[in-house]
Amino acid sequence: MFEKQIEKAETLVEALPYIKKFRGETIVIKYGGSIMNDDSLKKKFASDIVLLKYVGINPVVVHGGGKEISRWMEKIGKEPSFVDGQRVTDAETMEITEMVLSGKINNEIVTLINSIGGNAVGLSGKDANLFTAKKITGKDQKDLGFVGEIVKTNEGLLNTLQSANYIPVVSSVGQSLEGETLNMNADNVAAGLAIALHAQKLIYLTDIQGISKEGKFLEHITLFDAEELLNHPDIKGGMKPKLSCSVKALQQSVKDVHIINGLIAHAVLLEVFTDYGIGTMISR
Amino acid sequence: MFEKQIEKAETLVEALPYIKKFRGETIVIKYGGSIMNDDSLKKKFASDIVLLKYVGINPVVVHGGGKEISRWMEKIGKEPSFVDGQRVTDAETMEITEMVLSGKINNEIVTLINSIGGNAVGLSGKDANLFTAKKITGKDQKDLGFVGEIVKTNEGLLNTLQSANYIPVVSSVGQSLEGETLNMNADNVAAGLAIALHAQKLIYLTDIQGISKEGKFLEHITLFDAEELLNHPDIKGGMKPKLSCSVKALQQSVKDVHIINGLIAHAVLLEVFTDYGIGTMISR
Amino acid sequence: MFEKQIEKAETLVEALPYIKKFRGETIVIKYGGSIMNDDSLKKKFASDIVLLKYVGINPVVVHGGGKEISRWMEKIGKEPSFVDGQRVTDAETMEITEMVLSGKINNEIVTLINSIGGNAVGLSGKDANLFTAKKITGKDQKDLGFVGEIVKTNEGLLNTLQSANYIPVVSSVGQSLEGETLNMNADNVAAGLAIALHAQKLIYLTDIQGISKEGKFLEHITLFDAEELLNHPDIKGGMKPKLSCSVKALQQSVKDVHIINGLIAHAVLLEVFTDYGIGTMISR
Amino acid sequence: MFEKQIEKAETLVEALPYIKKFRGETIVIKYGGSIMNDDSLKKKFASDIVLLKYVGINPVVVHGGGKEISRWMEKIGKEPSFVDGQRVTDAETMEITEMVLSGKINNEIVTLINSIGGNAVGLSGKDANLFTAKKITGKDQKDLGFVGEIVKTNEGLLNTLQSANYIPVVSSVGQSLEGETLNMNADNVAAGLAIALHAQKLIYLTDIQGISKEGKFLEHITLFDAEELLNHPDIKGGMKPKLSCSVKALQQSVKDVHIINGLIAHAVLLEVFTDYGIGTMISR
Amino acid sequence: MFEKQIEKAETLVEALPYIKKFRGETIVIKYGGSIMNDDSLKKKFASDIVLLKYVGINPVVVHGGGKEISRWMEKIGKEPSFVDGQRVTDAETMEITEMVLSGKINNEIVTLINSIGGNAVGLSGKDANLFTAKKITGKDQKDLGFVGEIVKTNEGLLNTLQSANYIPVVSSVGQSLEGETLNMNADNVAAGLAIALHAQKLIYLTDIQGISKEGKFLEHITLFDAEELLNHPDIKGGMKPKLSCSVKALQQSVKDVHIINGLIAHAVLLEVFTDYGIGTMISR
Amino acid sequence: MFEKQIEKAETLVEALPYIKKFRGETIVIKYGGSIMNDDSLKKKFASDIVLLKYVGINPVVVHGGGKEISRWMEKIGKEPSFVDGQRVTDAETMEITEMVLSGKINNEIVTLINSIGGNAVGLSGKDANLFTAKKITGKDQKDLGFVGEIVKTNEGLLNTLQSANYIPVVSSVGQSLEGETLNMNADNVAAGLAIALHAQKLIYLTDIQGISKEGKFLEHITLFDAEELLNHPDIKGGMKPKLSCSVKALQQSVKDVHIINGLIAHAVLLEVFTDYGIGTMISR
Repeated sequence: MFEKQIEKAETLVEALPYIKKFRGETIVIKYGGSIMNDDSLKKKFASDIVLLKYVGINPVVVHGGGKEISRWMEKIGKEPSFVDGQRVTDAETMEITEMVLSGKINNEIVTLINSIGGNAVGLSGKDANLFTAKKITGKDQKDLGFVGEIVKTNEGLLNTLQSANYIPVVSSVGQSLEGETLNMNADNVAAGLAIALHAQKLIYLTDIQGISKEGKFLEHITLFDAEELLNHPDIKGGMKPKLSCSVKALQQSVKDVHIINGLIAHAVLLEVFTDYGIGTMISR
Repeated sequence: MFEKQIEKAETLVEALPYIKKFRGETIVIKYGGSIMNDDSLKKKFASDIVLLKYVGINPVVVHGGGKEISRWMEKIGKEPSFVDGQRVTDAETMEITEMVLSGKINNEIVTLINSIGGNAVGLSGKDANLFTAKKITGKDQKDLGFVGEIVKTNEGLLNTLQSANYIPVVSSVGQSLEGETLNMNADNVAAGLAIALHAQKLIYLTDIQGISKEGKFLEHITLFDAEELLNHPDIKGGMKPKLSCSVKALQQSVKDVHIINGLIAHAVLLEVFTDYGIGTMISR
Repeated sequence: MFEKQIEKAETLVEALPYIKKFRGETIVIKYGGSIMNDDSLKKKFASDIVLLKYVGINPVVVHGGGKEISRWMEKIGKEPSFVDGQRVTDAETMEITEMVLSGKINNEIVTLINSIGGNAVGLSGKDANLFTAKKITGKDQKDLGFVGEIVKTNEGLLNTLQSANYIPVVSSVGQSLEGETLNMNADNVAAGLAIALHAQKLIYLTDIQGISKEGKFLEHITLFDAEELLNHPDIKGGMKPKLSCSVKALQQSVKDVHIINGLIAHAVLLEVFTDYGIGTMISR
Repeated sequence: MFEKQIEKAETLVEALPYIKKFRGETIVIKYGGSIMNDDSLKKKFASDIVLLKYVGINPVVVHGGGKEISRWMEKIGKEPSFVDGQRVTDAETMEITEMVLSGKINNEIVTLINSIGGNAVGLSGKDANLFTAKKITGKDQKDLGFVGEIVKTNEGLLNTLQSANYIPVVSSVGQSLEGETLNMNADNVAAGLAIALHAQKLIYLTDIQGISKEGKFLEHITLFDAEELLNHPDIKGGMKPKLSCSVKALQQSVKDVHIINGLIAHAVLLEVFTDYGIGTMISR
Repeated sequence: MFEKQIEKAETLVEALPYIKKFRGETIVIKYGGSIMNDDSLKKKFASDIVLLKYVGINPVVVHGGGKEISRWMEKIGKEPSFVDGQRVTDAETMEITEMVLSGKINNEIVTLINSIGGNAVGLSGKDANLFTAKKITGKDQKDLGFVGEIVKTNEGLLNTLQSANYIPVVSSVGQSLEGETLNMNADNVAAGLAIALHAQKLIYLTDIQGISKEGKFLEHITLFDAEELLNHPDIKGGMKPKLSCSVKALQQSVKDVHIINGLIAHAVLLEVFTDYGIGTMISR
Repeated sequence: MFEKQIEKAETLVEALPYIKKFRGETIVIKYGGSIMNDDSLKKKFASDIVLLKYVGINPVVVHGGGKEISRWMEKIGKEPSFVDGQRVTDAETMEITEMVLSGKINNEIVTLINSIGGNAVGLSGKDANLFTAKKITGKDQKDLGFVGEIVKTNEGLLNTLQSANYIPVVSSVGQSLEGETLNMNADNVAAGLAIALHAQKLIYLTDIQGISKEGKFLEHITLFDAEELLNHPDIKGGMKPKLSCSVKALQQSVKDVHIINGLIAHAVLLEVFTDYGIGTMISR
């Protein structure tokens, strides 16, 4: 009798070496991709975050917007506009973007985590000037509107919240020194915060398995490998900026970057609490 | 020479007795009304908040939505619906309401305060379960949709933020134990937080001078007077629930309630840093 | 793919409600019985203790001696002596008892826990006067030699160690006010420390399933039931004093007592992290 | 209506940028000159000190003696004695000097500050060995008696008092390693403490507008300018040692030195809370 | 060999039980009487104070003025004036009294303690409003001038200094709510501070052995005995108010009062570190 | 009268300069030699340790086993075995050694210190991995069995205990990374802990006066002298490794090493609280 329960207990104690290794460390998780459309996966993700916190690891969740922004733009009859294939964010688009990111998606994640026993607090770059952004342009300096990248972080608030046992959930909306609200790439924001917090790990949840090169999936590569890969033709689309952010994070203070498939249930726990993991790990 | 500067210095030192009296105390300010439509007044309001914080007083700002919600409802072609004169909040209205309150107005106030040198952090009832709500009904138990009132506060997060010198800005969006997002009366939320924080003062910014009775403006009344006033025919419209919240706050832990005209520049400073004040003060 | 890992992750997150419930609480575990002769079970026990600590629960381990004392008495050619069936502890027996308990078994448990990543510190009642004992006598005041029971605790050292994240392991050797070293009943010591620490749980590891009455196993009883049971003929042998200690602990400050079978692998985790548990639970 | 009050509120918020800039910093103020003979100015000075403290700036007041020493020397029929124009401090003069400085003037300043709501504590170099002095001689090594300059500071007491929100008021009486009580130049003591505390500002209250050179008043000069000025014929009398102290302070850790006219009401506030100020500012 | 040193070491360890008993407690010592005229005794007194501090006891020294005030009054040609045998303190007398107490005697004690390795800080009732006084009158309401007794203490500064390991030395000069400087009875001040600090002991240094009644010296009496003694004809002169202060201190929060002969070398140590002591001990 | 008590008080204050010098510092004392067989000397030793703690110095006691191990080996009929004159520790010898050191001698010292008012806590290298050992071999790599030397310390537990005012008592039993229990040279352990704690002093209690060279006793030598002495023919037997440990300790972080005669009563106090001391002092 009790065989099944004993097996479960074994599973709990198998996590001990990983807990020991990462206790007290910060792990920044970029939450995004199709997982955001799957209620069951979302709840599992939230469980992973709470479990990390409960065992003494400090998770920080960073998120972007996904399809929800488009849905609301349609609602108000707004046509998307592009320049050389890049979305242009005009003032009204920025308004709706911020409302969706900071007023809807962020709250949903906060609520989900709290419903499982976490103590999440929603933030954006504007709260206590968590991060400052600057406007970026497209190819040939073409105007993309209110789009920015991180230029400075002010991580004091995150430290205050972490040491009081709260879980920060950060939407990728920032502000420039000139006071403009800017739409930020969430991968870029996650990397910036991971660097500022000297994170142990930066984890990107994506819709694919990880990085592949010449048809071969890469389980574990070094920063050096990653730097080389940046110019490889197999690195394209969304993976290119993600890898670029990864390299920057590792060059500065982050220990490991993981690019994993968020569509696998409990992807975060699997990646943190097993040796081989489920995606691509890039280490210094 | 220097006469004008000396006069200004005199003004600064005139504030000393008030600073001495309220240092270390919490003041909850319900921000709302037409002030939200006036950029110059808004900036002055933000200055007042930062000054309070700088002299060692702990302000907490609570806000509702005003006309911005209606503007966005129109944008998506949504007709307002009423039951016995009370607005009914259906699911889609609640969605847009939360986005406007927590994703737009809250961020604007945070940004305004930070631009003046404060360290504001935006919150809603959902963050770390700051407050829990329950659905309320209209007259004769008529369904008003997703509308609620505060039933429980969890003020730990406010204490953490205050002692680390942040200024909390709270949107009046809450959540029920059943997980429904509810639109809250901001006057009710402000009173609930003031009670939980044992606030020295609860200040309501309105569009009128304060409370008048039988054609006479009331500068200073007692809790006893206020309890009597509750049933007076002159107390009607929005003043009735506001006075009811005031009475509840004073009956529990709040020392003074002020109902003042937010359209007067620096209304908050004038009320806190002078003896007579500019509106109606209700004291225990 | 990953099915097995995902299942394991599910097991981890299933523990969340229990972790949430018991975080920050103290659990005193009386370690003893045949588990002490089984290297595999011992290691599993140590894992359970470390896991509790890692998730923010404060375990305190109390142990007696078991067969090891007899083995060493034989080695020095010492015959056991009895009065009315109770062992008599003369001075030389006390000497060897203390050496085995505090110098051998205690160190083994400490080492085991540390090998798994815990930070255990071995103590006895003598360290910082952790507990003070008084001599007890057998039936009709017959002299049992150096045998005692707890009369006073001085739990400051345990608090210091717990808040610095150490795991205390306490041998049941005490000292009287007169300076005599006394052999203590470990069940009694565990109850005394659980009371002093206002423990959430006091867990007795035994060699049987728990408490049975009239052929029926009792899964969950109240303190009231337990008080009644004390005089029931089915409660006999070692269970009688154990139940008596349980009742005393519950009457004072302890919330739950568990009498469980230490021969089930991971018995402690199973009892703490599931609702039904594996033994008898007595609650206030 | 309320125009005047609103104007006052404007004045308060105008101070915000200065408060922000100097919060948490230390400002050492040498109080002296004719202001000490004017009750109204003294009270205004005390208000300025309390206001600085209330907005989070840490003032330290250092004072010398002025005419009060002479008045008491006359009372006991003591003739002043000079060597090459420098006052000679014999043992009895030192006794009366210490009594007047530490037992009269110091207490008056403490009392004044406390009457306005500050929490001032009076000290001299002797308290917790705040500073140690050595005897100095006049021209050609002529004996000046018990006159000294600062050689070592022990600022721990000031840090303790500041962080507990007290305002230190320091009389310029010191002690040599040999145990002699020495009369110190208060400008020298103020500079020594400003250096030890890494003060943001060192402010000298004098009876003149500031530094003038070749008939031209100097509003803002650099440390380099000040070093050059030291040998300029226009720098003479009491200004020479004051400028010398200023240069030493700036060469070490002090950020700005201000030499201002204490006879202007609220001179300290005007200098700290405006950009142009009212006297001469010397910056690194 | 080493016999003498070993004997000295024995003496050190003999103090252990007393140190254990009084560690962390506050002892207020009224320093006064003829000891103030004997340099050797003064130094021994200072050593006692430093030793108490070094072993973890918190001494607070309170002093009056003795003959030094009279010496300075003579210097300025001031005649003492009396009403019914009580000294009248006019404004000029108060001025010189404060200068002597706070500017001379206080500094001497501070310096003495510091020379032996203590960290003394001189205070009066004016520092941080340590105590507030009110004017008292003589028999039949006759005006005694600027003479007062303690009505309120504000012991925060003493706590701050004690916990930062400083030794407070307090002169018996106070201030009334009306801002008048008042000459205080030092016995009264010592009792007031001992009460406010919940002192373990209040020790009065006098010039006599202690209390005698009907020719018999009293080594140890109870508060009850002391209350009875208050009206006994043998209690007269300075002993009457001293006993009255003692009774008041014991009735409130002080554990023991000691009235001892300051002319015995190391009187304080002898009283604190031996069981029988050298004077009269009054206990609750 | 009181002459004798006054003399004793003088003795107490004579200790002031030494207390001042060593307050807050750590002193590691290797307790061993014939003192362990003398109940009166042991009690005096314990008094010295408690007194050091009471005056703010942090003692750490390290002990070996002495004759008690041999006595217990005889009891179980175990013959000692030697290789080239060095004792060989087989598994059973190690078992009995640990029981005697950690289960008997350690407890005796703890109890002795506590009986005098100290708060001692017994530890070995196993507690919280206080120190890690590695096996050492004899001449020509001959196997000595379970004998080791310190290779790594983990002094966190000592810091925790010291700052909570406990006195650590450490038995010289360690563990290798491979999990073997090893018998350690206590001189080596004392030096290792002194280095890790940056101790002010490392004191070796021996049975001789200290170090002599060419018939001359050495009172005070430098580290340089000690390094030279290492190869001198007069340094032999147990003194050679002791001197070698001393040199290593001084080369790293320890300020002074003392080699003294534990048979002199209060040897520790005499050495710490007098200038000349009673043994050989080696200073950097």
